[in-house]
Amino acid sequence: MGKKRYEIRLSGSGGQGMILGGVILAEAAAIHDGINATQTQSYGPEARVGASKSEVIISDGEILFPKTSDLDVLLCLTQKAAQEYIDDLKEDGILIIDSYYVGNVPSKYKNIYKIPFSQIANKEFNTTLVVNIIALGAICAATGCVSEKALFEAVKARVPKGTQEINEKAARLGIKLVKEQK
Amino acid sequence: MGKKRYEIRLSGSGGQGMILGGVILAEAAAIHDGINATQTQSYGPEARVGASKSEVIISDGEILFPKTSDLDVLLCLTQKAAQEYIDDLKEDGILIIDSYYVGNVPSKYKNIYKIPFSQIANKEFNTTLVVNIIALGAICAATGCVSEKALFEAVKARVPKGTQEINEKAARLGIKLVKEQK
Repeated sequence: MGKKRYEIRLSGSGGQGMILGGVILAEAAAIHDGINATQTQSYGPEARVGASKSEVIISDGEILFPKTSDLDVLLCLTQKAAQEYIDDLKEDGILIIDSYYVGNVPSKYKNIYKIPFSQIANKEFNTTLVVNIIALGAICAATGCVSEKALFEAVKARVPKGTQEINEKAARLGIKLVKEQK
Repeated sequence: MGKKRYEIRLSGSGGQGMILGGVILAEAAAIHDGINATQTQSYGPEARVGASKSEVIISDGEILFPKTSDLDVLLCLTQKAAQEYIDDLKEDGILIIDSYYVGNVPSKYKNIYKIPFSQIANKEFNTTLVVNIIALGAICAATGCVSEKALFEAVKARVPKGTQEINEKAARLGIKLVKEQK
């Protein structure tokens, strides 16, 4: 079996749960799927203007350098995040965008999933609080970086008590939305 | 003014809030004090047996490599965490331990703060949930890596609504406990 390694960045505005999303994805890999993971936030000037990003590396080998520089997967929930980070995505990387907020993206990217995450969260769950969890489902289905079972377990272990069921539904919806575009 | 750079690891058992503690410390530096910070979790085999660690680098310069290797500051809330991580602390680094759980530490370390965090949390606040926040106060006072004001602001921005006041008190108590030992 070949080495499996994914460098993933989740980006959006502050308050969209990108940090918790990164923690859940890393725990799905490390605790529930039993492979290695790191999760990093780098706060620079953008943290002070409300942008937020979170990075996860998942690997079945050792992770020596946890800073992502050549992304396999990029999630952008806002246009601002897309402008800031899109150049860090490999040309054959997977781009997942909130299609309601993110307009044009460079034509060199061919593996794109366009999903109006915030609109769907509002329509299906009456809240945008689950937008990060829907996005994790999308990342899981688009990449296979973690198993669906590990994702559900990690989600349920980290979200507030009483919200496990709605969050598992949100993750399942994200998986379904990507599978429909495959 | 010389460059200021702190490599800090928070360690304990799963459920002691080490990840949230790292996020709060990094945000105190980056959002409230206006300097750079990264915060990383590395999940390896130890994540599957309940140990937890979280790393923060705070710097007024650029942070090119966010993995801490030569720690300036190490917090250990359990004996297991101390055994696992103590060798990563510089000889002149600052060691902060839960003195109720952590017994012997290598004699080469001279800058040690011994505080029974869990016992104090239970006695003063009737809960161990604030143990991570008391520890952040201790780190702040022992190192000066972030300002007290930035720490209180970051704590209040991240803890659950309705618990801001108790958590600010917990941070203030951690600061006081270290100042008494200085």
